[in-house]
Amino acid sequence: MKYSHHIEFKVRDYECDMQGVVNNGVYQNYLEHARHEFLQTRGINFAEVTESGINLVVIRAELDYKNSLKSNDTFVVRSLVRQISRVRFEFQQDVYKLPQEKLMLAARITGTSLNANGRPFVPDMLTQLFITD
Amino acid sequence: MKYSHHIEFKVRDYECDMQGVVNNGVYQNYLEHARHEFLQTRGINFAEVTESGINLVVIRAELDYKNSLKSNDTFVVRSLVRQISRVRFEFQQDVYKLPQEKLMLAARITGTSLNANGRPFVPDMLTQLFITD
Amino acid sequence: MKYSHHIEFKVRDYECDMQGVVNNGVYQNYLEHARHEFLQTRGINFAEVTESGINLVVIRAELDYKNSLKSNDTFVVRSLVRQISRVRFEFQQDVYKLPQEKLMLAARITGTSLNANGRPFVPDMLTQLFITD
Amino acid sequence: MKYSHHIEFKVRDYECDMQGVVNNGVYQNYLEHARHEFLQTRGINFAEVTESGINLVVIRAELDYKNSLKSNDTFVVRSLVRQISRVRFEFQQDVYKLPQEKLMLAARITGTSLNANGRPFVPDMLTQLFITD
Repeated sequence: MKYSHHIEFKVRDYECDMQGVVNNGVYQNYLEHARHEFLQTRGINFAEVTESGINLVVIRAELDYKNSLKSNDTFVVRSLVRQISRVRFEFQQDVYKLPQEKLMLAARITGTSLNANGRPFVPDMLTQLFITD
Repeated sequence: MKYSHHIEFKVRDYECDMQGVVNNGVYQNYLEHARHEFLQTRGINFAEVTESGINLVVIRAELDYKNSLKSNDTFVVRSLVRQISRVRFEFQQDVYKLPQEKLMLAARITGTSLNANGRPFVPDMLTQLFITD
Repeated sequence: MKYSHHIEFKVRDYECDMQGVVNNGVYQNYLEHARHEFLQTRGINFAEVTESGINLVVIRAELDYKNSLKSNDTFVVRSLVRQISRVRFEFQQDVYKLPQEKLMLAARITGTSLNANGRPFVPDMLTQLFITD
Repeated sequence: MKYSHHIEFKVRDYECDMQGVVNNGVYQNYLEHARHEFLQTRGINFAEVTESGINLVVIRAELDYKNSLKSNDTFVVRSLVRQISRVRFEFQQDVYKLPQEKLMLAARITGTSLNANGRPFVPDMLTQLFITD
């Protein structure tokens, strides 16, 4: 797959639960951070967008857990994004354990952009997101 | 829908992010706690099961975000579960804001049970889970 | 000790780490939620205060960990507050496991209130906090 | 101060709360990760130690919050450790925002080591921790 962005992480022990693996909910944290870093590379600063009254929101998340990350694991989140309607965009985000690049999680995150009244609204800057590398 | 279990929560402010709403990843925490409390009502104690060498794991999560929970909101997570194959079970879990019972999130969480070697294995006690009320 | 507020919790399994106990950092979450609920009983809504441009902030936290909370434990956070200078207030917050009321954590949290420019500023409403029961 | 270990981080947006700054409780996560990475450099793997039946635990945390980290900030946690009694050790851990090295948090974390029966017990390997660089 042709990803547009990647970012490496290391598991932190507070992210592991009593099963000794990264808790399921934590993966959404990883994916969010990867998306925001991806946006940043396209000139979109999440905090500034939020302060300007525009809310980038997730409307659907689909996560397939393949294998469990553990203490001390390092991994990479690889992402790509495509526009799926006038006001919706979908991120494909896959988590691979390093150094073998073993697939740990495959996710599809659908988002939209809302103005201060909660109405879908795609600001011009978001078009930056869909420029193919 | 005929749910089998419900549990009430109140949003805690540390769960809210810079958008002033509950962060997307936190909903998986709510759902996990609701599932574990549900299991407990069927005589299945998550910590004891884990210590006995059996890992109840999530293999897929589908979350549809309908509306955002905010500071001070109270809500209920309503759950039901069904067996979808010999070794897989699926929870339908919906989050409703109180007191209006407004739907905030609809989720389907697929799980399985693994023995100490990581092989699918459904212990007898799990059959308790699928007894219809 | 004469506490002014108490709130009950149950441990959620995602709060437990690989040692099978509630992770150290999670206690600050419990204490924050207890303080905000305490404030609410005095007519101070944390989210509204924040939106009005006033930031209630923690400037010091002292936590003595006495015993570890585990999966399925229920506990109560008991709090009291006193003004320690014109612009500083200190919460004493203690965590007791139920039903035996065994002390698990003893904390002192010092806070202040900052205006939009980051300067200490105690709004009138905060005086509500120091009314003795 | 002569620190023995440092590790760099970047704020992740899910760590920020409705005030738009890193939530107070999150700093303990940063400090824990920094300590575990520090231990690792001395040949002490936290997960392995835990699995061997020894629990490294925090018994006291003192945190002085000096300034607030925000979205997009990068920072470094600098740590040193000293033995304060036969069975207790204290980490001094300070958080500096980069690139200016502005002090954001100063912390002292006291820990001990417990055997499977919950009794203080300092395994030989911990002596590695107190070797001066």
